[in-house]
Parts: sequence; C-alpha cells; structure tokens
Amino acid sequence: MKEYFKVTELNQVIEHTSDFRIADRETVSINTASGRILAETIVSDTDLPDFTRSTMDGFAVCASSTFGASAGSPSLLLIKGSVAMGASPEFSIQAGEAARIATGGMLPEGADSVVMIEFTEAIDDDAIEVFKSVAPGQNIIEKGEDFQKGKTVLTEGIEIRPAEVGLMAAFGVSQVNVYKKPVIGIISTGDEIVPVSHTPPQGHIRDINSYSLSALVRNAGGSPKTYGIIKDDYKALKRVCEKALEETDMVLISGGSSVGTRDFTVDVLSSFPDASILVHGISISPGKPTILASVSGQPVWGLPGHVVSAMVVFDIVVNPFISKMSGVKNFNRNMFRQDAVLTRNLSSAQGREEYIRVKLFEKDDIVFAEPVLGKSGMINTMVYADGLIRIPLNTEGLDKGASVKVMLI
Amino acid sequence: MKEYFKVTELNQVIEHTSDFRIADRETVSINTASGRILAETIVSDTDLPDFTRSTMDGFAVCASSTFGASAGSPSLLLIKGSVAMGASPEFSIQAGEAARIATGGMLPEGADSVVMIEFTEAIDDDAIEVFKSVAPGQNIIEKGEDFQKGKTVLTEGIEIRPAEVGLMAAFGVSQVNVYKKPVIGIISTGDEIVPVSHTPPQGHIRDINSYSLSALVRNAGGSPKTYGIIKDDYKALKRVCEKALEETDMVLISGGSSVGTRDFTVDVLSSFPDASILVHGISISPGKPTILASVSGQPVWGLPGHVVSAMVVFDIVVNPFISKMSGVKNFNRNMFRQDAVLTRNLSSAQGREEYIRVKLFEKDDIVFAEPVLGKSGMINTMVYADGLIRIPLNTEGLDKGASVKVMLI
Repeated sequence: MKEYFKVTELNQVIEHTSDFRIADRETVSINTASGRILAETIVSDTDLPDFTRSTMDGFAVCASSTFGASAGSPSLLLIKGSVAMGASPEFSIQAGEAARIATGGMLPEGADSVVMIEFTEAIDDDAIEVFKSVAPGQNIIEKGEDFQKGKTVLTEGIEIRPAEVGLMAAFGVSQVNVYKKPVIGIISTGDEIVPVSHTPPQGHIRDINSYSLSALVRNAGGSPKTYGIIKDDYKALKRVCEKALEETDMVLISGGSSVGTRDFTVDVLSSFPDASILVHGISISPGKPTILASVSGQPVWGLPGHVVSAMVVFDIVVNPFISKMSGVKNFNRNMFRQDAVLTRNLSSAQGREEYIRVKLFEKDDIVFAEPVLGKSGMINTMVYADGLIRIPLNTEGLDKGASVKVMLI
Repeated sequence: MKEYFKVTELNQVIEHTSDFRIADRETVSINTASGRILAETIVSDTDLPDFTRSTMDGFAVCASSTFGASAGSPSLLLIKGSVAMGASPEFSIQAGEAARIATGGMLPEGADSVVMIEFTEAIDDDAIEVFKSVAPGQNIIEKGEDFQKGKTVLTEGIEIRPAEVGLMAAFGVSQVNVYKKPVIGIISTGDEIVPVSHTPPQGHIRDINSYSLSALVRNAGGSPKTYGIIKDDYKALKRVCEKALEETDMVLISGGSSVGTRDFTVDVLSSFPDASILVHGISISPGKPTILASVSGQPVWGLPGHVVSAMVVFDIVVNPFISKMSGVKNFNRNMFRQDAVLTRNLSSAQGREEYIRVKLFEKDDIVFAEPVLGKSGMINTMVYADGLIRIPLNTEGLDKGASVKVMLI
C-alpha cells in the first residue's frame, strides 16, 4: 500500500494565514459599512453626549430638594421654566426649583437629576409636588458619560455592526476606512462538468461548486469572481490560473484534487515561477485531498470536487484565510457556538479530525444535534443539515448524550 | 399617579405579525439568491445523480469478486477497460473483471462498487490484485441516491443558504422565485436632532437612529429607505408619513414615543383614514414606550428615541415582523442560541420582560456572559456588548452562575 500524500494537521494549515497579505483599504459611507472590517482606529473628538441630558420626561431638579419626599409628604417645588428640545436653557435651577424637561433635553445649570413626571403632580402652573426622591445623577446622562473626548472608541480590525455604525454617526464620522473585500477567483474543473444551463449528457453532472462556493465567499466577506468550467487540460488550467491570479486575491480550484487529477493541479501550480505547495492533504474528513499553494504571494486552493467536501473545507479551512485577508483581527475565533446534545453514538477513525453534519431540533427546551449521515458527494446531506460538529483528532468518537458545540452553516 | 399607557405583553405584540401581508415575489439569479427567502417549492425533474458514480479513484468491480480478499490472499481481477471522465462506458463488467475509474466517473454496467486504488496493485497492464473486499454499493453514489426524480427538494419559505444554491445549480435552476425584500422607511424625529454632517449646537445631538436602524434593517433582510430628520411638527410628520407609506412596506419612526411626543405621533398615525393603534407600550425593558399602528394595512412603529432602546426593540420586536413580511415561514424561531454562564446576580422589576446586554468571554472552555450595565441612552453599552439575554416576565431575576441563552447582536 502506497502513501499517496503526507497530510498536514488543521492547526498547521491555519497557521499559514500569516503567509498572506491583508487587503488594501478603501473609504465607504457608513450607510454601507455594516458587516465590513474597520481599517482605522476611531478616537472621540468630543464628549458624548456633549451636554448633560435628561433620559426621562419630567422635571430637572437639584436632587437634594427631593430628599425625603413621599406620597404622604411630597416636596413642593417652584417651576422655573421649561427646557425646549434642542435648546440651551437660559436659566438655572436652585434648591426648591424645577424645570419642565423632556427626554433628551439639556439640563439647566444647577440641576443634577430629573424627577419622572409620573412621580409629580401639578399644583398650578408654577408649582409641582414631588412624591419620590431622586439621587444626584438619576435619570440623566452626564456630559461625556457615554464616551469621553480623546478616548479610543473603535479599534482597527473589528467587524462593524449596526451599533458601531450608530456610534460613528454620533461622532459625525460619515465616511470610514474599511478593508477591501478580497476578490476570490473560482475555477471548476473536470471533463464531466457541464454548465447549469445544460442538460447533462450521460456521465456528466452540472457545475455545483461554482455556485455554492460563490455564495460561501460572499458570506465570508469576500467578493467572488467565477472563471467557468475548465476541462482536465494542463494548458487550459494554466491559462485560467494566470488570469485568475492576475485579477483576484485568492483562487479556489475545485475538482482537481482527487488522486486522479491532483498531481495535474499540483503540476500547474508548481509551474509558476514563485510557487510553493504549502499543504498537500489535510488530516480532516471530509476534505483530506485539499491543496494549498502560494503563488506570487497569493493563496491558491485545490478543493475536493465532492460538493460536501468542498463546502466543509471552505467553512473550516478557507474561511479563516478570507477573514484574515479581510483584515479581521480575531480571525481564528471559535465558530462552534451552539450547544447541543448528541442523539447517537459516533465512531471516528484515528488520525483525522472529523466534521459531521447535524440537524438541530428542540425538545423540552433542550437543543439536540442529530447526525446527518451520508456520502460527501451527496448535497442532500448539506441541505438537510443545520450545522457541523467536530470529532477531535485522536479520539474514538462521541457518545450519545454528549454535549457538543455546533457551527451553524 | 396616572396610568400613562396600557402596556401589551411581547407575545401579543408578536401575534400581530399575522395582521400584515407578505412581500411580493420576484425572480433572481441563483448567483444572488443566498440569504433570500424561497418563494416557490422546487421539485426534482431528474434523479440526482442521473447515473451511478464513483466516489473514489480506483476500480469499478462486482463486489462479489472481492469477497474474502486480503493482503495475504488478494483477488486477481482482469482490467476490462478505463472509464473516461464524462463518458458513458461502452463495455460492461462481470465477475473477475475491473475497470479503471476516477472519482465522479460513471460505473460500467455490471459493476456495483469501487475498490479504492490504495487497496490494489497492478500485476501488469491487464490485471490487478485487490487486497480488501468491498460491499455492494461501496464507494459509489447510485442513480437517484442523492435525490429521486419527482420529490420535493426545497420548500417555499426557507432561507436560501450556499447549500441550497448548490442544489438548485445541480437541478439546472438558474433563476428562482424569492420574496422581495420589504422596503422599510426610517424617519428620525426630534427638534434636538441634527444631521451627521453637522456639528451639533448646544442641546443638540447627531442623528444616530437613521444609521443604526438602516444597518439593522439590512441585516434583517429588509431594504432601508431613510426620510431624514423631521422636527416635532404635526404637519411635517404627517406629510413625511404619507410619503413613506406610499413608498415603503413598513415605517419606523424613532424618537416620537416618549411621553412628551408620544401622543403627537399617535395623533398623526390616528389621523389616517384606515389607521388603528394596535400597541401602545410593551411590557419590556428597555423599549416600553413602543407604538405599533396599522395604517392602510402597513405596520408603522413608533420606536423609543434612546439609541439602545430603539436597537433592542428592533432586535426583539420589529425583526420578527420583517422576517414574516419577507416570507420566512418559521419566523418566530428562537434567536437566543448561545449558551453561557451568568457572571453576576441580576435583579428584575416585576411585570416586564428585561433584556440585558452582555459581553461574552471564554475561560477554561466555558462561555461566560458578563452583564453590561448602563443607561439605554448610552451607545457604548451596545458597542461593548456581544448579545442580549432575557429575564422573563414575573421572575425576580437571575442568579450568578445561572445558565443563560444569548442572542448575538
């Protein structure tokens, strides 16, 4: 029995992320920044808020004027005036006085808190009774309480979420530097592959991988660029690789990595002047016959042709590379987030990390993971599955009832 | 003390999703279908695969020819021919015969399994020895094994993921019916609000909600359309509401729902001929002063002006409405998926459901949720938080060490 290729462990494959460069920066409107990776560090140029604001509708007061107030023994306060929204009040408040104020209004000088309108009753137009004491600072946001001027508010390399978009708006940042989405070239290979628009003649199948990989690339924050279907022909593959390397930041070649055509893909990649084959087989299942090469400093992948294998390798292996190239700082974060209880025993072969598709269901408030078994050439298993679980290297499997972590797909 | 508004429980608010219509359908290329909601049911018009394929590189055989084969006692098989990729083999296999085949190749008639090349050795050009037996069906995918002709393969109302895109490609579905993204109008109100490009005069703040809500709408599968900042003026709000109702499927008005301006928003909404105020206050915190009206059959929301309150109400309450209008069938699915351990006691007021922002961190393989406390007008709490946890209605709070479910934000 011949050793066909020397497999690499997943961790070592992931370490190669540092071999490749991070995408360039571009400036976008914050309207389209959500989901992008921040390429600058943002420092507050003002206090937020820039004035002390009420967080309730009611009366701005000196808290001490309300101490001891209760329904049985209310405090009587004189109304000094009303704070108009968006206005800077031209009067100040002293002990025994109050000013009408709405949520978001600016506190008059002297006031240190707001009594909610629910705990007051008007005596006449000029006076109120307060039934409940407030503490200094209550029902207000003080100047600079949200963010102080000169502080770092957002750090380069984070993913921008709606909250961060809102924060940038608060500081008047309408344009922001983000990392460009890496452009990922996708090449389908194989004499048996026909375009989706064709009815496959006997022995042929339609090109699935160009479509599923494009969708995965988009979800991963990349921008897919497809190069169609290439026959198993050295020159044709070399030509399209040259073009893709020219036009993209990373190239995915699917189908050329089984024993039959693997050496062929390796030959093409090796023929480039500054190429090196970094990985030739990974100790994961599915996905063992995966190739990673560096060509002109760009990562080029040979992915398995089986649709499920290609998708799993993408999720587990390629995704961290796209994240890293997109500028994500904590790119190796744990994607296995959903806890679940395994519904059956799973055995595992030694010497490889296994990724098992699972269907999730809930019963009595417990989430269960039901393994979806099936060959890695069958897409129905991927459509039926909600996620993947991992059986680590060198374990004998997982027992029914085991607590597992699921990566949602 | 006056009852300012009669609050509705969250479940009852969510039930109003059925009051509103689902978006129209449109046809899109499967290239852009990922993330969209399928608006048709797809039935297989062919077996998948349409022929029996090899899943390995090796030799197509009759399994019975290999029974009992071992390293010490190999089976000798005669090579009948080679299967070219994409070709329909013109020969058949009988007992004692084998055909060279690569992954994805079509099995010759008579063959029922494939021996992996690793378990064979060539004797000469015409014969091999097989060292390991295979079972019938092993290392092949039979015609129709992935999907049988005439079966429902994808059901209307599901979210299309990369796997579903791949499946549609496999069946030659290049264009697909999806639900249109509902267009969501966003109106910011308040005399104190200035555009992001302005330096706020004293007493003013920049418009945050238009930006954070737009980003949330996009994440929720909607298409945001902003209407700028409207002063606290009945006529101006009425005019912009008319326009937004004309141009969108749902309207979000932020800032007009505190006691100060709430009645004002309600007055404007009530003034439309076929309007009804469905909800006027929800028993959640933050987010109590939320309004839901139906105007001309469209949902119109009055959201709290506080940035955190508006975002939490969006995540918890508005999001299910957008999902429902987008055609999602299981729209009320549980968004609280991440298990974590609470790091401190949390008390809760009776009579409302509380949503607490939490920061997640991992220690010794356990995920902890650290509450991020702070006023709901302070956006730093939302930027610092990774998710929300819920303290149910009518409980006294949660204890340190409690197991909680986190909705990631």
